[in-house]
Amino acid sequence: MTSTDPSRPHPAWLPPEAFRAIGAHHTLVYGDGTLVDTVYDEVGRARARYGGTVRRLSGQATEPERAGADETPADLVLALAPTGSPPAGGALPAEVGSELGAEVAGLGPEGFALARRGGVTVLLAAAPAGLLYGLFHLVRLGPAAFGADRPVEAHRPALRLRLVSHWDNLDVHPVMGQVERGYAGGSIFWRDGAPAGDPERIRAYARLLAACGMNAMTVNNVNVHGTATRLLTDRLDDVAAIADLVRPYGIRVHLSVNFAAPVSLGELPTADPLDERVRAWWAKAAGRLYEAIPDFGGFMVKADSEGQPGPYRYRRDHADGANMLADALAPFGGVVHWRAFVYNHRQDWRDRSTDRARAAYDHFTPLDGRFRDNVILQVKHGPIDFQVREPVSPVLTAMPNTRLALEVQATQEYTGQQRHVCYLGPYWSEVLRFAPWGPGRPTVASLVAGPADDGDGAPAGNGGGASAGGGGLVVVSNVGDDHYWTGHPLAQANLYAVGRLAWAPDLDPVAVLDEWIDLTFPASATGDPDSEPGAGSDGEPGIGSDGELGTEPDSGSDRKPDADRETLRGTLHALMDDSWRTYERYTAPLGVGFMVAPGHHYGPDVDGYEYSRWGTYHFADRDGVGVDRTRASGTGFTGQYPQPWSDRYESLADCPDNLLLFFHHVPYRHVLRSGATVVQHIYDTHFAGVDQVARMRRRWDRIGGSGLVDAALHARVADRLAEQQRCAEEWRDQVNTYFLRKSGVPDAHGRRIH
Amino acid sequence: MTSTDPSRPHPAWLPPEAFRAIGAHHTLVYGDGTLVDTVYDEVGRARARYGGTVRRLSGQATEPERAGADETPADLVLALAPTGSPPAGGALPAEVGSELGAEVAGLGPEGFALARRGGVTVLLAAAPAGLLYGLFHLVRLGPAAFGADRPVEAHRPALRLRLVSHWDNLDVHPVMGQVERGYAGGSIFWRDGAPAGDPERIRAYARLLAACGMNAMTVNNVNVHGTATRLLTDRLDDVAAIADLVRPYGIRVHLSVNFAAPVSLGELPTADPLDERVRAWWAKAAGRLYEAIPDFGGFMVKADSEGQPGPYRYRRDHADGANMLADALAPFGGVVHWRAFVYNHRQDWRDRSTDRARAAYDHFTPLDGRFRDNVILQVKHGPIDFQVREPVSPVLTAMPNTRLALEVQATQEYTGQQRHVCYLGPYWSEVLRFAPWGPGRPTVASLVAGPADDGDGAPAGNGGGASAGGGGLVVVSNVGDDHYWTGHPLAQANLYAVGRLAWAPDLDPVAVLDEWIDLTFPASATGDPDSEPGAGSDGEPGIGSDGELGTEPDSGSDRKPDADRETLRGTLHALMDDSWRTYERYTAPLGVGFMVAPGHHYGPDVDGYEYSRWGTYHFADRDGVGVDRTRASGTGFTGQYPQPWSDRYESLADCPDNLLLFFHHVPYRHVLRSGATVVQHIYDTHFAGVDQVARMRRRWDRIGGSGLVDAALHARVADRLAEQQRCAEEWRDQVNTYFLRKSGVPDAHGRRIH
Repeated sequence: MTSTDPSRPHPAWLPPEAFRAIGAHHTLVYGDGTLVDTVYDEVGRARARYGGTVRRLSGQATEPERAGADETPADLVLALAPTGSPPAGGALPAEVGSELGAEVAGLGPEGFALARRGGVTVLLAAAPAGLLYGLFHLVRLGPAAFGADRPVEAHRPALRLRLVSHWDNLDVHPVMGQVERGYAGGSIFWRDGAPAGDPERIRAYARLLAACGMNAMTVNNVNVHGTATRLLTDRLDDVAAIADLVRPYGIRVHLSVNFAAPVSLGELPTADPLDERVRAWWAKAAGRLYEAIPDFGGFMVKADSEGQPGPYRYRRDHADGANMLADALAPFGGVVHWRAFVYNHRQDWRDRSTDRARAAYDHFTPLDGRFRDNVILQVKHGPIDFQVREPVSPVLTAMPNTRLALEVQATQEYTGQQRHVCYLGPYWSEVLRFAPWGPGRPTVASLVAGPADDGDGAPAGNGGGASAGGGGLVVVSNVGDDHYWTGHPLAQANLYAVGRLAWAPDLDPVAVLDEWIDLTFPASATGDPDSEPGAGSDGEPGIGSDGELGTEPDSGSDRKPDADRETLRGTLHALMDDSWRTYERYTAPLGVGFMVAPGHHYGPDVDGYEYSRWGTYHFADRDGVGVDRTRASGTGFTGQYPQPWSDRYESLADCPDNLLLFFHHVPYRHVLRSGATVVQHIYDTHFAGVDQVARMRRRWDRIGGSGLVDAALHARVADRLAEQQRCAEEWRDQVNTYFLRKSGVPDAHGRRIH
Repeated sequence: MTSTDPSRPHPAWLPPEAFRAIGAHHTLVYGDGTLVDTVYDEVGRARARYGGTVRRLSGQATEPERAGADETPADLVLALAPTGSPPAGGALPAEVGSELGAEVAGLGPEGFALARRGGVTVLLAAAPAGLLYGLFHLVRLGPAAFGADRPVEAHRPALRLRLVSHWDNLDVHPVMGQVERGYAGGSIFWRDGAPAGDPERIRAYARLLAACGMNAMTVNNVNVHGTATRLLTDRLDDVAAIADLVRPYGIRVHLSVNFAAPVSLGELPTADPLDERVRAWWAKAAGRLYEAIPDFGGFMVKADSEGQPGPYRYRRDHADGANMLADALAPFGGVVHWRAFVYNHRQDWRDRSTDRARAAYDHFTPLDGRFRDNVILQVKHGPIDFQVREPVSPVLTAMPNTRLALEVQATQEYTGQQRHVCYLGPYWSEVLRFAPWGPGRPTVASLVAGPADDGDGAPAGNGGGASAGGGGLVVVSNVGDDHYWTGHPLAQANLYAVGRLAWAPDLDPVAVLDEWIDLTFPASATGDPDSEPGAGSDGEPGIGSDGELGTEPDSGSDRKPDADRETLRGTLHALMDDSWRTYERYTAPLGVGFMVAPGHHYGPDVDGYEYSRWGTYHFADRDGVGVDRTRASGTGFTGQYPQPWSDRYESLADCPDNLLLFFHHVPYRHVLRSGATVVQHIYDTHFAGVDQVARMRRRWDRIGGSGLVDAALHARVADRLAEQQRCAEEWRDQVNTYFLRKSGVPDAHGRRIH
């Protein structure tokens, strides 16, 4: 086992060992540009470690130079298509080059095609970004890229914009700290109003992002206050410095801006989006930005949301506000991410007619068609706020003439705050694959992909998508300056998975986890340097017959993983595969949401938000619980969905159990589709959830001292599992006691409820 | 009406007009010492304003000087008894002098006697402090001190130690701010770790304290952290500077200390109270203190309480800890205030066997008799924590061989945080007059007074008191650097009242309020400079037949107050007399306590502490509510009381309604002694409490613009009444909704519950 250097950030899914296969071969890198330089450097570092060779050939190479390259045998060719047919490189049959060349023509700037024939692996891309993503694809393939022949395969991202949103504050917020809802230490970008001062860390981060498929990021919190406002003006150089660091990995920098910046910076008396001075101010700001950062991505705006300023102050609407910023960015090709997270955050809990779930739809759908092509409406995946279980936001289904982005949250605000294991890949996968109009119709993934603009790689749009394409995916970062990046070492998998799912929403999240395991815990780090990691397995662990979590994964592949690796893999799958559902079991039941401690959102407080202004209620009384959002007798929220879901959610009989209390207020003895009563379901899942955490903990303890993982990492996870168990027990006991006290219904199994 | 200077602190109960009567007369001040200087200065300032005269005669005066004084007629003589028979002063019959002289002999250092005969008012004291208190007594009397003859009357404080405890932090605490649980701005002593920089304000504060009868104060929070620890060492000069400012008003300075100071200051490896190095360290610290502050009062210690260090860390008990500090102070005459606020603040809510109410008794009563004579055990008035309704702490009844102090809280942590009108005089009066062994037996006031050490003025002890006397009263300050001192202008009355009740616990709190009204809003400030304020009335306002609060007070005295003054007086009584019970009505019912928002403790959160570690639960379920503290079936806390209260609290039939849920868990339909069911009582009081607040507000609005009070003060109170009403409605609605949802019992009167 190799220990990682505790003085440097943990390598996450890019330890040097991940490049073993590539580094052992003879590589030709062919093409020009910053990102091709990056590819060359990456291969060079791997080569230095594993004994291969690497050569570089410019697209401007002369015929003799090309011929010379052809003469030197390479068994890995990474080439840009625009540079012309790649050098054949030794034994590579010429037809492979032209097959690949035909393929990449339709893959766009980030796509790539690859094949292996006659002992040579060739990867071709139409643009440098594609070559970089192709390289990381090879990293994932590992030795499989260099074994038997591989037929031509083509890859391109399903979603073109894949952005990490950092809620990093510049100034330390008195309550939220350096990173709002951050659970991984400080910010990698900022410290006390100044740059954090570790450029290497930012570069390493960009590399990790590229390796999982992300291509953009914001560098500051959507709540923009104080110094952060000045990133637009006199602190612009700080943004440019970050952009310079991440550019080599194909990451574009976006900026969160305060809609009232012209006013709060003291430069104008108004921020009215229709005021010419305001428009000129933003145009000038955009010009400055693009002068400093030619590939600047654009603005992200939280407007008229939770106290942030916005166009409402000037009696303008969101389209007026977003379009004004869009017009400022349009000459430079930038986009505006405009958040749809708008609701009344000063609701009166006595008012049952107002339904926060309705808010985004009610605010935004009337504006469909009015947004500029370079406005992206950024929609949280559920109608409330990143709860452990929510239905998909109906806004995603109702704005065919608007570019829509799906916003998900990797930082575990409501899902255990990186003290709990909660692998969110399965949740995001469910959301992305959800088909609002029923099976065979467009999915959420296709809605945010938008209509395909070329080729065959992208999923079909919903037929009425915005002409400029979809808005892609935005994920709220879970990263900080913690050694492991994410506080909980296993939370790294969430960032990895979201990138992979944004690239390919159809991926099986358990298979993605397997990729992450192979990369993060390579063979040489598990006591057997000769063993080659496999590409993972489809085996989906469950609860074995002995009552312990996690059968060993199916090893029906052609790899021969050693027993230690399979033990580790099995352990990680046992801990992580089902961890989101485990978290759901011991927290708020049946989609009812919240029940968290107000403010910091960690741990249970069943009535914590029940009498608050936040619009997040469960309405539990002595008879029943849940929110009636039906058209028949409730807030009518079900009517925001298209068929068949509109009727399915409306129907008490058809509504999925796991969302029952989101849509219906039911008696405690209401019988679920599962056959259990609501109250017995609450008891059962809460006992089961805690039991699962106890098993996870025992499972992890079993590999302690085995050398299968770094001892410090093992200790960190063990500590957090202990806290997870304590907290899960607290959830179990508070929720069960609350409902026993309210319902008076005893547990059918006579277990102890306090 | 005179407006007060907004740039200077509000004069509170010492506006210049309060000295009108004294200032108009011819005064002789006879005696020496700092406090006599103060008396002379006070009279001098009044004289300058109101045209009288004042002369000073030293106790060392020669016979000719004395004779000369005798020849100049004075109609007010303020004299120290030890200086010999006072000069007769014109028409004063000689026998008055000797009558008074005989009287003061038994009154102790703070007592005084006064009489008026033949047009001369004579006030005699055995020591300078008595003269100062006598002067403020004359201020309260106003013109009544200078009218008809007055027979000899003697005054002395019932409680010898009357201390204001400031929870003022030196450093700004990240959560608690500059003043812990402070609702009146910053600290008058400290700002950001340094002295606050306004000596005049501290001097004015000392004067206010003396005028209501307090004689000691701590200058820092009982939670001692950071810089505050260094007040013992290199920041000692800051304490001495405050002592110098307050000494002229008879206020002694005490210091809150951290029990682990020798360790936290890095000077010793241990704070073990039996370690000789530790004992020597504290002895040296005490020596330094007394060198700088010869009249230093002593230490206040929060030990082994809510995370503060204490003797338990060294397997010593509280007597070991307190006695060690007492030994350090004894050579100099200092005392240790040792707080009995010790309980398990990490309780498991699931554990029903632990009862926080029991904790102080269980911890401390076994130590009775073991504390040094200069240790004062400081006991919060109730067994929990300053809730709006608690029974008296049984600790006060169970430690006959220990000096006990009663701790009350003027800062309105749980009683509206100085945004709500909540005059606490009636509550403290109830506590002080409570007779734990039944009528005719010792009261709480007599228990903390201790056995009388001389004369006739002090109430009898309980017969087994500590030989060194009682521990007096400690009040947590409600003062800050706010213009009105207390945030809410009417909250000044709480500080005034606590001083008056500590001096004379038998005072009617409504009469005390009347004193405060007369002083604070003197005639010249109410539009009629010729009208002399009266000494108040006994009329106790209630709800009049018109449904509005506050009948006009009875004007059966011999004064002729003008209508405006009586309107103002009536308004203030209507707002304040019943305000504590009003607050009780709309907050947590029937003594159950808490139900406040966790952390900041403002506003309702019925379940806010129900699943917390703080030991403050109500155990409401669908059937009933309350804490079973009986011997028969509960925690046995009732057994900590002597008879008859032990049995009375134990009995469901006999327990006072207002404490029912403190002692019993009962069904919602349990019928109270009042005849109402518990749940109907909850509904009724919550509706009634809000209605009362609405009436208070209307009453206050009625005098708006009338010039009866300063416009700024009126506006401040009006703003706070608006907030009080909003908050009271929130309390009403949350509490009523909570219990309707839980009990399912509808309101008998069909009022709206959400």
